[in-house]
Amino acid sequence: MPTTDHPTPSTVTVLGLGPMGRALAGAFLEAGASVTVWNRTPGRDAELLARGARGTATAAEAVSASDLTVVCVVDYDAADAVLRGEDVTAALKGRTVLNLTADTPARARDTGAWAAAHGIRYLDGAIMTPAPSIGTPDAVFLHSGPLDVYEEHRPVLAALGGTHTHLGEEIGRAAAHDLALLDVFWTAMAGYAHALAMARAEGVTARELAPFAAGIAAILPPLFEEFAGDVDAGTYSGAINPITSAAASMSHIVAASESHGIDATLMRTVEGQARRVIARGHGKDGFIRVTELLSSR
Amino acid sequence: MPTTDHPTPSTVTVLGLGPMGRALAGAFLEAGASVTVWNRTPGRDAELLARGARGTATAAEAVSASDLTVVCVVDYDAADAVLRGEDVTAALKGRTVLNLTADTPARARDTGAWAAAHGIRYLDGAIMTPAPSIGTPDAVFLHSGPLDVYEEHRPVLAALGGTHTHLGEEIGRAAAHDLALLDVFWTAMAGYAHALAMARAEGVTARELAPFAAGIAAILPPLFEEFAGDVDAGTYSGAINPITSAAASMSHIVAASESHGIDATLMRTVEGQARRVIARGHGKDGFIRVTELLSSR
Ligand SMILES: NC(=O)c1ccc[n+]([C@@H]2O[C@H](COP(=O)([O-])OP(=O)(O)OC[C@H]3O[C@@H](n4cnc5c(N)ncnc54)[C@H](OP(=O)(O)O)[C@@H]3O)[C@@H](O)[C@H]2O)c1
Ligand SMILES: NC(=O)c1ccc[n+]([C@@H]2O[C@H](COP(=O)([O-])OP(=O)(O)OC[C@H]3O[C@@H](n4cnc5c(N)ncnc54)[C@H](OP(=O)(O)O)[C@@H]3O)[C@@H](O)[C@H]2O)c1
Repeated sequence: MPTTDHPTPSTVTVLGLGPMGRALAGAFLEAGASVTVWNRTPGRDAELLARGARGTATAAEAVSASDLTVVCVVDYDAADAVLRGEDVTAALKGRTVLNLTADTPARARDTGAWAAAHGIRYLDGAIMTPAPSIGTPDAVFLHSGPLDVYEEHRPVLAALGGTHTHLGEEIGRAAAHDLALLDVFWTAMAGYAHALAMARAEGVTARELAPFAAGIAAILPPLFEEFAGDVDAGTYSGAINPITSAAASMSHIVAASESHGIDATLMRTVEGQARRVIARGHGKDGFIRVTELLSSR
Repeated sequence: MPTTDHPTPSTVTVLGLGPMGRALAGAFLEAGASVTVWNRTPGRDAELLARGARGTATAAEAVSASDLTVVCVVDYDAADAVLRGEDVTAALKGRTVLNLTADTPARARDTGAWAAAHGIRYLDGAIMTPAPSIGTPDAVFLHSGPLDVYEEHRPVLAALGGTHTHLGEEIGRAAAHDLALLDVFWTAMAGYAHALAMARAEGVTARELAPFAAGIAAILPPLFEEFAGDVDAGTYSGAINPITSAAASMSHIVAASESHGIDATLMRTVEGQARRVIARGHGKDGFIRVTELLSSR
């Protein structure tokens, strides 16, 4: 009983009902789609069934119900365990799988090859925002794989809200972006955790530091854009902030941290990278030259 | 020849004419103050002299010219080399020093004790924004030390623009905030450098990744505020994102990085912290519990 402005009722299957799978299925229901759901462990679908989803006993039955199956489980070992079952693989022939599970680009490519070998149309995607964002304008989805397949299913994906970007046909691109972005996120979060520990040792509470830390985070976006230009051009200007000055700050952080008995391995590693760039004669360049250091084997 | 709306012409001395010292002196001049400048290496003051600053042959002469001396050199070894000269220390007696040089809280406390022993009024500060921000609304200054001394000099500091926050009388607080914030900044930057190296190995250019990386950075400020509440309360909810899930992402990043021969020491360290939190039985908590791990010796 579609109640939205969708031209025709869409049909979609969701495999995997963790917090993210449930959010995806819920957004499809909200948009009036006919939604079939399945999860390895039974019982996770109760709320979705109450909202009109159809549950099935097996994954093979679930994928048979729709042209498009969205998979969202913990990693590709889990996705393989579901998709590569003989019945499921057979039922998927001629249909489309959109795998929104997070893992490495290599695993995405491996699954792409498996899909091709079994006549399954395959898209790989990544979700860059938390489960509560799904169905809202804040959600961010990255996709890769055949453009025609993506275009065909783009209308039903609109139900998920947010922005959808097709990054290219190479199937590993969504995962490559995903990992690089999670890299930025978790490294920054680790820096924040360490900063909070240092602040606490100095009698500064987390809430006292937080507004200033938020201010520091807020200056990152334009710097990220600026440094990307440096990296692509191979010119790493340190006119405003040479890496020697950055290394001096880093050594202050290490000293203060260790004076409080707080492990400073993370900042020692960062300082080590800066010192290697300086030792190679690039002390007047900016810190982002570390990208080149890491890239050269 | 004051040309601004300052009630009375202020008088200020600036010691240290690197990029930041020059920016500070320039902003004071711009606001119509009488500015005396000095730098270890002569000749750095040419442009400031042309704009009306007064240069002196010695630092002692310079500090004798004003009630307030702002020091901005590379670190506290350099600041000590200037301030603790016999003539300078004698000339500073009864006057105020605002030290905007960056270093550790311990060094700030040491300088505070030296100042007290010599009858010098002492404020310690930190500048959180780059030299070009000085004199603009974007500048961010943190201060610590005696509130009455700060209040007395607050009007002349208005010439530097931006926001000024007095963090407390304990002289090390500005440096403690400074280091914690630089910790967040440089760790995040290191994460970005590594992410760019990974992206490049996957055929994704820096400019392609940058807009998404900027999007990730933009979600940090509210998360920093939220997690600060967790840390102060000692309750680390992982309901939306348990640390086990974070650790899984981290291991994907390490695997992808090393498959390209890109050093992953940084993320290995972060993952190691997460695994230790999990091993202590807190796998359902959020990643920010790492703060507690680091704080406990
Ligand atoms: N949650 C978020 O905010 C968020 C944000 C961005 C991306 N993601 C990504 O979305 C994906 C799903 O995340 P999630 O938050 O929903 O929870 P999750 O804990 O990562 O995954 C739970 C799901 O995986 C299934 N699963 C695990 N091992 C399995 C196996 N061997 N065979 C079949 N199914 C298996 C679970 O089934 P059982 O119920 O049977 O255990 C459950 O459906 C992950 O790749 C995650 O990185 C999540
Ligand atoms: N530049 C920025 O954007 C920025 C932003 C925030 C904070 N800061 C902080 O501001 C401070 C100054 O930074 P900066 O950018 O101006 O340049 P810098 O390279 O950190 O410092 C250069 C200044 O230090 C002096 N100096 C070095 N060793 C000395 C010594 N032994 N005795 C006397 N003077 C000595 C230099 O004098 P000579 O000319 O004689 O060498 C010069 O005046 C630093 O603590 C920095 O962390 C700077």
